[in-house]
Amino acid sequence: MTSRHLLDLNSLNIDEWMMLIKTADEIKNHPYRYIDACHGKVLATLFYEPSTRTQMSFQTAMLRLGGRIIGFDNPATSSVSKGESLKDTVRVVSGYSDIIAIRHPKAGSAKAASFYSKVPVINAGDGGHLHPTQTLTDLVTLYEEKGQLTDMRIGMCGDLMNGRTVHSLIKALCRFKGNSFVLISTPQLRIPSYIKDILNAVGAKYCEVNTLEEAMSDIDVLYMTRIQRERFSSDEEYERQKGVYVLDKQKMKLAKSDLKILHPLPRVDEITIDVDDDPRAVYFEQTEYGMYARMALIMNMLDENIHKVDGAPVSTHSETCTNSNCITQTEKYLPKIFKESRDILVCKYCEERILL
Amino acid sequence: MTSRHLLDLNSLNIDEWMMLIKTADEIKNHPYRYIDACHGKVLATLFYEPSTRTQMSFQTAMLRLGGRIIGFDNPATSSVSKGESLKDTVRVVSGYSDIIAIRHPKAGSAKAASFYSKVPVINAGDGGHLHPTQTLTDLVTLYEEKGQLTDMRIGMCGDLMNGRTVHSLIKALCRFKGNSFVLISTPQLRIPSYIKDILNAVGAKYCEVNTLEEAMSDIDVLYMTRIQRERFSSDEEYERQKGVYVLDKQKMKLAKSDLKILHPLPRVDEITIDVDDDPRAVYFEQTEYGMYARMALIMNMLDENIHKVDGAPVSTHSETCTNSNCITQTEKYLPKIFKESRDILVCKYCEERILL
Amino acid sequence: MTSRHLLDLNSLNIDEWMMLIKTADEIKNHPYRYIDACHGKVLATLFYEPSTRTQMSFQTAMLRLGGRIIGFDNPATSSVSKGESLKDTVRVVSGYSDIIAIRHPKAGSAKAASFYSKVPVINAGDGGHLHPTQTLTDLVTLYEEKGQLTDMRIGMCGDLMNGRTVHSLIKALCRFKGNSFVLISTPQLRIPSYIKDILNAVGAKYCEVNTLEEAMSDIDVLYMTRIQRERFSSDEEYERQKGVYVLDKQKMKLAKSDLKILHPLPRVDEITIDVDDDPRAVYFEQTEYGMYARMALIMNMLDENIHKVDGAPVSTHSETCTNSNCITQTEKYLPKIFKESRDILVCKYCEERILL
Repeated sequence: MTSRHLLDLNSLNIDEWMMLIKTADEIKNHPYRYIDACHGKVLATLFYEPSTRTQMSFQTAMLRLGGRIIGFDNPATSSVSKGESLKDTVRVVSGYSDIIAIRHPKAGSAKAASFYSKVPVINAGDGGHLHPTQTLTDLVTLYEEKGQLTDMRIGMCGDLMNGRTVHSLIKALCRFKGNSFVLISTPQLRIPSYIKDILNAVGAKYCEVNTLEEAMSDIDVLYMTRIQRERFSSDEEYERQKGVYVLDKQKMKLAKSDLKILHPLPRVDEITIDVDDDPRAVYFEQTEYGMYARMALIMNMLDENIHKVDGAPVSTHSETCTNSNCITQTEKYLPKIFKESRDILVCKYCEERILL
Repeated sequence: MTSRHLLDLNSLNIDEWMMLIKTADEIKNHPYRYIDACHGKVLATLFYEPSTRTQMSFQTAMLRLGGRIIGFDNPATSSVSKGESLKDTVRVVSGYSDIIAIRHPKAGSAKAASFYSKVPVINAGDGGHLHPTQTLTDLVTLYEEKGQLTDMRIGMCGDLMNGRTVHSLIKALCRFKGNSFVLISTPQLRIPSYIKDILNAVGAKYCEVNTLEEAMSDIDVLYMTRIQRERFSSDEEYERQKGVYVLDKQKMKLAKSDLKILHPLPRVDEITIDVDDDPRAVYFEQTEYGMYARMALIMNMLDENIHKVDGAPVSTHSETCTNSNCITQTEKYLPKIFKESRDILVCKYCEERILL
Repeated sequence: MTSRHLLDLNSLNIDEWMMLIKTADEIKNHPYRYIDACHGKVLATLFYEPSTRTQMSFQTAMLRLGGRIIGFDNPATSSVSKGESLKDTVRVVSGYSDIIAIRHPKAGSAKAASFYSKVPVINAGDGGHLHPTQTLTDLVTLYEEKGQLTDMRIGMCGDLMNGRTVHSLIKALCRFKGNSFVLISTPQLRIPSYIKDILNAVGAKYCEVNTLEEAMSDIDVLYMTRIQRERFSSDEEYERQKGVYVLDKQKMKLAKSDLKILHPLPRVDEITIDVDDDPRAVYFEQTEYGMYARMALIMNMLDENIHKVDGAPVSTHSETCTNSNCITQTEKYLPKIFKESRDILVCKYCEERILL
């Protein structure tokens, strides 16, 4: 892969994506060929906020490759993360392990960690910013269940304004030709304009609708997500609207026979239980594809691993990022680095745009 | 084994019990033959309530077979178990693992889990309902320490009314011929009548006594358990009585030289420390037999594992179970299934009996 | 090694130290020769107080030897350690494992554990008393980074009165010839007199100074530790003095080119971040040497392991230790054992000296 670390899925090119997706497929079909693939290697999972599901997926991936796991999952009971800088923890743990998966509530934390790690770093979610292995999971699922990544009509349902996984998946599918999108949400929770810019730039067709019913009959894929109660303008509005975004057996009758339903899980009640037995529901299989995707990723990154510390870049600006959730706000020693683009600065940690 | 899952030890026949017991014996005698027996396999321990001792026993069992472990132990810090149905968690984790051990405070939870798991489920304790691997541990201990499971006189001491392990062990020993029982407790904490029905049905002799002294001289096995302070009618009564149910060096002088003392542990003060060095005390060995018992069980269940979801049965009744601790009270989607027996319904999850 | 357990580094002789140090060096140079060295073995880490860093170092060490790990890290959520004596927990867990690393807030707890364990016990820190693997780590670091353990001038900076690691390292280095010491602290935080007695007994030269600057130019090794704010006589005193004990780039200019800086970590602000990139800073490497030191130790102890319980010694006195942090204060069943030395008794658990 072109980078030692996996911080942002978009830093890989399409060939690298396809290599990972095909490796995941190969592992799924022949798991026993890989049970010792990472024998003697150690994965450290540094979870600065609990996320049992994601952590368990990474851990299982490494264990099924014959590797070992260390790490922590709870900053409250972990003395490693207390009163110690991210830099020191990452530097120490990278001396114990061969690869690190880090999850942290602050945007840009995985990038910050990559500066000080002797071993490859995987971003397992940095605040609301990026979560590349979820998107890789979604791509593997589509490849396995649809047999293709091009020329699909994809419905996206839920809170499209704030949904990180939705944005990331749209961006990814825009790199494959012929995909079009049906964006299903309340008017208040429409997709942000920067995503529309991307759709327009690649010439991908899309439309925005208010109800699942309008979309069901002509889509090939339905990506369901949750709309949180607090996103509605009022409780009454929530009660009136919520059913519109709940997928149930009734709405399934409108759909194509080869529709595939994805969901990043956990679900709350946006998909009713009786849909689970429908063969078009693949959200549980999706979690398994996530395991294979992570196996492919870990195996590949360990293969190319060269043990050396990259060294942090030097600061390129005196500006400080204005995003209050940026990792540079709490870890003061981090170099201030920005991408300049005419009259704005883009923070290289969290991608916040600052007007000069 | 006749079932894919181990929910209740009584669902196995005697031949299957003896096969497991003899496998445990074989592993104990030749542990190094088994260090790779489950190479490449993964056990998930889903502990919805903390029970470090039981979880550690399961984990060690799997690790000593060369397998790997994932799971959680604390619902408070685990995002898997938060806001997600038992069904979804079990379905997802069964996609990661080859076998699941589940512990949950609600009766019938392991049975509920078995409906949705792709892999075999072991009941590691479901509320006060069943705990089959403890009983298997007790049988392995008796087989190892007494050389037999028949024709023994067994003392049972403590809170016989509420003690789940005691009830389960009596039921198990009633399936072997020639065993008789001395039931040692306060009058308030006598064995429940349904256990007496079982004893009478198989013609097993038993007597009820008030003190350890009365029982000590002619028993072959003494199974000690704790009487909790709150079980006594008053604090004065507790202070007056507690010594009667404490096993100490003095009382040991009354016992046969080949008596064996068992205890499910942890003990509080119902066995004094000076008894530990008596060769007749085998309660610490018992925890090791528990590890071998679980190794035998896991190995056997993995051998016969066919990867498929059973699919939940359909509801057989419109009734809802009346037991407030039944898993069907919190997981509303579960099918309502009952065994009918003349004018009563028996809940298939928790075995609560409901009069029609 | 002369003892089955590692409770106190001083119970080993110099030859045993050198054997461990050289084994650590060998593992560091050829880690892949050792990835299956402890295949089939289990390490239990019993951490009665959280110490993620130390626990992770032990766990990684065992995993990198191909062994497996069990244990607990948080007494609050662990039912093993709740309401159960140290004796019972250790006895049970030693039936599951091949070696135990124990950390406990009470002095003498590891010694107490060793009485009841069937397998070797490593002291991973018992209150403020002993922490032998930290000292072993420091020795391995000096051996690797200086190429020698003799004839060095060693600066020790920080809270020398209360610093356990400092005392322990001085004692260790006094067993090698030609070492001298520069003791850098405030007058209130000078080294205790019993350490001066040891220095004098072996004829090791030492001087006491008030500032890092006075020491920097002629030392070969600088061992940095933290001075906690609460150790100063007042907040004003702290603010006035703290910079004196902070190592920064400026002070580094005074030092020899082959100085090596150690720190047991975690650091707070006693070493500034800009020192990290100085090649003389080896405190991150030190944590890796700690992993190799623990690998050498575990491998060696497992080799010589004879499975038997030692049996606790009988009490030698009717006295009770007067140290309120001694393990005998909470675990009442422990035999009262003392070393007699003229008119004082020395507690064999915590080394408290009691005047008769």
